[in-house]
Amino acid sequence: MKFIHTADWHLGKLVHGVYMTEEQRHVLYQFLDLVEREKPDAVVIAGDLYDRSVPPTEAVELLDEILFKINVELNTPIIAISGNHDSAERLSFGSSWYKHSKFYLKGKLTKDFRPVHLNGVNFHLIPYADPGIVRQILEDDSIHSHHDAMKAIVSEIEKEMNPNEPHVFVGHAFVLGGSTTDSERVLSVGGSGCVGAELFAPFHYTAMGHLHSPDALKHDTIRYSGSLLKYSFSEAKQRKSVSIVEMSEDGSFTLREEILTPKQDMREMEGFIEELLDPQFYQNQQVNDYLKITLHDKGALIDPINKLRQVYPNVLHLEKKLDVTDAKKKQQFDGLKDKKRSELELFTDFYSNMTTETISNEKKEIIVSVIEKARQEMEGK
Amino acid sequence: MKFIHTADWHLGKLVHGVYMTEEQRHVLYQFLDLVEREKPDAVVIAGDLYDRSVPPTEAVELLDEILFKINVELNTPIIAISGNHDSAERLSFGSSWYKHSKFYLKGKLTKDFRPVHLNGVNFHLIPYADPGIVRQILEDDSIHSHHDAMKAIVSEIEKEMNPNEPHVFVGHAFVLGGSTTDSERVLSVGGSGCVGAELFAPFHYTAMGHLHSPDALKHDTIRYSGSLLKYSFSEAKQRKSVSIVEMSEDGSFTLREEILTPKQDMREMEGFIEELLDPQFYQNQQVNDYLKITLHDKGALIDPINKLRQVYPNVLHLEKKLDVTDAKKKQQFDGLKDKKRSELELFTDFYSNMTTETISNEKKEIIVSVIEKARQEMEGK
Repeated sequence: MKFIHTADWHLGKLVHGVYMTEEQRHVLYQFLDLVEREKPDAVVIAGDLYDRSVPPTEAVELLDEILFKINVELNTPIIAISGNHDSAERLSFGSSWYKHSKFYLKGKLTKDFRPVHLNGVNFHLIPYADPGIVRQILEDDSIHSHHDAMKAIVSEIEKEMNPNEPHVFVGHAFVLGGSTTDSERVLSVGGSGCVGAELFAPFHYTAMGHLHSPDALKHDTIRYSGSLLKYSFSEAKQRKSVSIVEMSEDGSFTLREEILTPKQDMREMEGFIEELLDPQFYQNQQVNDYLKITLHDKGALIDPINKLRQVYPNVLHLEKKLDVTDAKKKQQFDGLKDKKRSELELFTDFYSNMTTETISNEKKEIIVSVIEKARQEMEGK
Repeated sequence: MKFIHTADWHLGKLVHGVYMTEEQRHVLYQFLDLVEREKPDAVVIAGDLYDRSVPPTEAVELLDEILFKINVELNTPIIAISGNHDSAERLSFGSSWYKHSKFYLKGKLTKDFRPVHLNGVNFHLIPYADPGIVRQILEDDSIHSHHDAMKAIVSEIEKEMNPNEPHVFVGHAFVLGGSTTDSERVLSVGGSGCVGAELFAPFHYTAMGHLHSPDALKHDTIRYSGSLLKYSFSEAKQRKSVSIVEMSEDGSFTLREEILTPKQDMREMEGFIEELLDPQFYQNQQVNDYLKITLHDKGALIDPINKLRQVYPNVLHLEKKLDVTDAKKKQQFDGLKDKKRSELELFTDFYSNMTTETISNEKKEIIVSVIEKARQEMEGK
């Protein structure tokens, strides 16, 4: 049994106000070539197919196009689940029909924990679900955290597990010990949102989605494939790839990575503005890459972003290098901020990440009142 | 060939702030019984499956459930197109897979005008499209109105039409001579949005969606099935039904209607508040119906809506009867309003119909500037 493990496509993603749809199309066509070449027995997509519950129509059309090519034109079974960015209900539409052609899409968690059986391997499809939802579905009031929820789910699965066959868990979660970047939406504000790696011991391989680096977790049998593309500058140094798993009848497997190469890379660059604008320098640069530029210049500069964009059209973020004392202050402040950020700040950031605008005062007021109400409910008032 | 013609389900519809989803489920289950009983060779749905481009998730789940039951459980082919309320792109997702089980969903108009061939009958599926879209697709700059667009589409269809077989047109448009209600969104602000009935002469039967009454158009071969439910008080006196068409090989057909009965009717009621609150009166009433109540009382009443809702929980609209002079004035004003309503007024109404709130001043300002910009573009400034 050979399958390709991928996840976190995030179709419809906006990065610093730029839609990544054409970049995504480019890399997905590379992926199609890979599927054609490798002829796997299945493609496994471990959640976050879209970047948001209501993705732009271009993203909807792109997903339809790619999945159709994999599943129908290349005649390859697909196993997919929804992640925390997807709308379970919206993604589920039509899934009953897709089974005809071995496209198994589990959008919503249900009580039905029967695996998908393909070429002798059992795939257990567990879409992302909040602990409250799992509590309802399993009618188990002891479930409060993501860890509790996953533990309960795995023990449901174990009830019917055939010990003589290999088992693959397909999930979307933050496994304890994994390392994060800026573009993964936190699963649980306040709580840890983590699940313990030990929960996945019953499975020969665990195909995870959520964290964006293939190195996010060091573990023999639990793996993040990583995202399709770099989705924030904190991922600038990561390689992006998919994992090709070949599993024997006893559940042992070999794994190799295939790198995906974007049309335009996302990377950081730094120097004095004069250096960066010097043709001697930039003639050796991929000037169309998505760039975060850190300037070393001190003092005021006149319209540096537009000067830079004449050479580097895709500068997404510009900042000045702080001297050592400033940097220390900033670090302390950032550290403080991370711990002490209010719900309103978190929401405000989220809003500006999800749209191309900053939040209006009117909307802020609404959020403040919602947060206040939620706080009162939590405190049992 | 026997098919059932329906349209304008408007799943996810809000009527005066109340979601109709449970009413829609009730009537759709009646429809399922009908399909089971009649065993048609196809179910034809002529657009506006949803009420909006991004319907609530409950509506998405309901549509998935009903279509699966018709198509897979009852093994009945489905022919469906999108209407002006649907998002062509979002509705299209997955349609390539549905064909396996003879569910033909045409969400987006394309250059491909090949019909669906079922039991010897050709079904021509033409989803709603703005004239500008049709102009692009057909690369025909002479297309400006809905009539132009439909004419061009029909002439494309005619090029490949087999004259020895029956032809059914499935469309979503405002055919000239049809009569409207308050719940059909206008197709074209400013222009007429109408298409001439003569355009459909090449077809033996034209299954239309858009207008909500089965009596909206008197024509031998062009028919509106009407909507699933009453969606505004201007439809209170309409019957709601689907049309069962039995077509011979020569394209001649017989037609009969099957009435759909909602759990709670939508109707108007009038009288003095004391009469309406008298048990002698209301014990013979279906008090749970969705009601528009017109009070005959003059002078101030204390909190009449809440008094009435203690007996009639689903009063959606309350107004006072105007005396003759007032009524005349109002009529004149309404007449004036209909003709002279500004884009802002139209949008404001639309906004409050589509949400449960009234529009904020901030949003109004945005709309005013958009309208102004559009006007300038139209005037070629």
